[in-house]
Amino acid sequence: MFTPQTIAYIRSPFNETSKIPKGLGAEHKAEGAIEFLREFEPGLKDIEGFSHLYVLWIFDRATDYDLVATPPADEGRPHGVFATRSPRRPNPIALTVVELLGRDGATLRVRGVDMLDGTPVLDVKPYLSSIPIETLKRGWLEEAEERKTASSK
Amino acid sequence: MFTPQTIAYIRSPFNETSKIPKGLGAEHKAEGAIEFLREFEPGLKDIEGFSHLYVLWIFDRATDYDLVATPPADEGRPHGVFATRSPRRPNPIALTVVELLGRDGATLRVRGVDMLDGTPVLDVKPYLSSIPIETLKRGWLEEAEERKTASSK
Repeated sequence: MFTPQTIAYIRSPFNETSKIPKGLGAEHKAEGAIEFLREFEPGLKDIEGFSHLYVLWIFDRATDYDLVATPPADEGRPHGVFATRSPRRPNPIALTVVELLGRDGATLRVRGVDMLDGTPVLDVKPYLSSIPIETLKRGWLEEAEERKTASSK
Repeated sequence: MFTPQTIAYIRSPFNETSKIPKGLGAEHKAEGAIEFLREFEPGLKDIEGFSHLYVLWIFDRATDYDLVATPPADEGRPHGVFATRSPRRPNPIALTVVELLGRDGATLRVRGVDMLDGTPVLDVKPYLSSIPIETLKRGWLEEAEERKTASSK
């Protein structure tokens, strides 16, 4: 098994988890940056050509995990942790898709951050393809959205 | 920093990396399974409702990393490792999107495996949204595809 190492830190407008948009219809349009440690800067060559990136980062505030979680989007309804984006997972690794706005040396300017300021990053990968939206099924989340729409009518 | 732990193992038809489709136009249609360790089975509750999943897994054959990589899709042209899907990365974590075909207890049957048989898995997350394909820019990969198309005319 490998030993995780921090390759970069997130700069984001969020200093508290309560400030990060969450739940149904939450939009992640906040701008921020991924500041790579100097030693990793050569790994960014040609990244400017990609419009979107996967960012793998650490839920560094999570102290333990629960196999069953109750997500904010579906209050009171428990789901298996692997069917949620809960931070309390066996391996506290998070995944966010961001839009790449530009690069200044070892810093990537991005849109769509949903991390706290100072969050450690494990990896960045190019986003290469999408599952067509019309083929996606989104389980309990879809049902929660339908309930919300129905109750607001 | 956390200590990574295996939550599941991949069952796949691939016993050698040379058998896994790679490079431009590679299609990942192979069926396989994600076999969770028994203790993690409760974490799968309600996962059946999702059509697609992110699988985070370990490049467990990778022994070191290179900051600049020469991907098979673009022979001879080096790119920064974070602009590629090279296994030789500072944190040897891989990301694959699979289609969920069904669940039998602690086993998820999936389509789209590009891992070796026996690969250790770190996390599974629901795939909730896609970047519209028409907004994607794919940098050097797009250029390599254009060169390939031009040379085959």
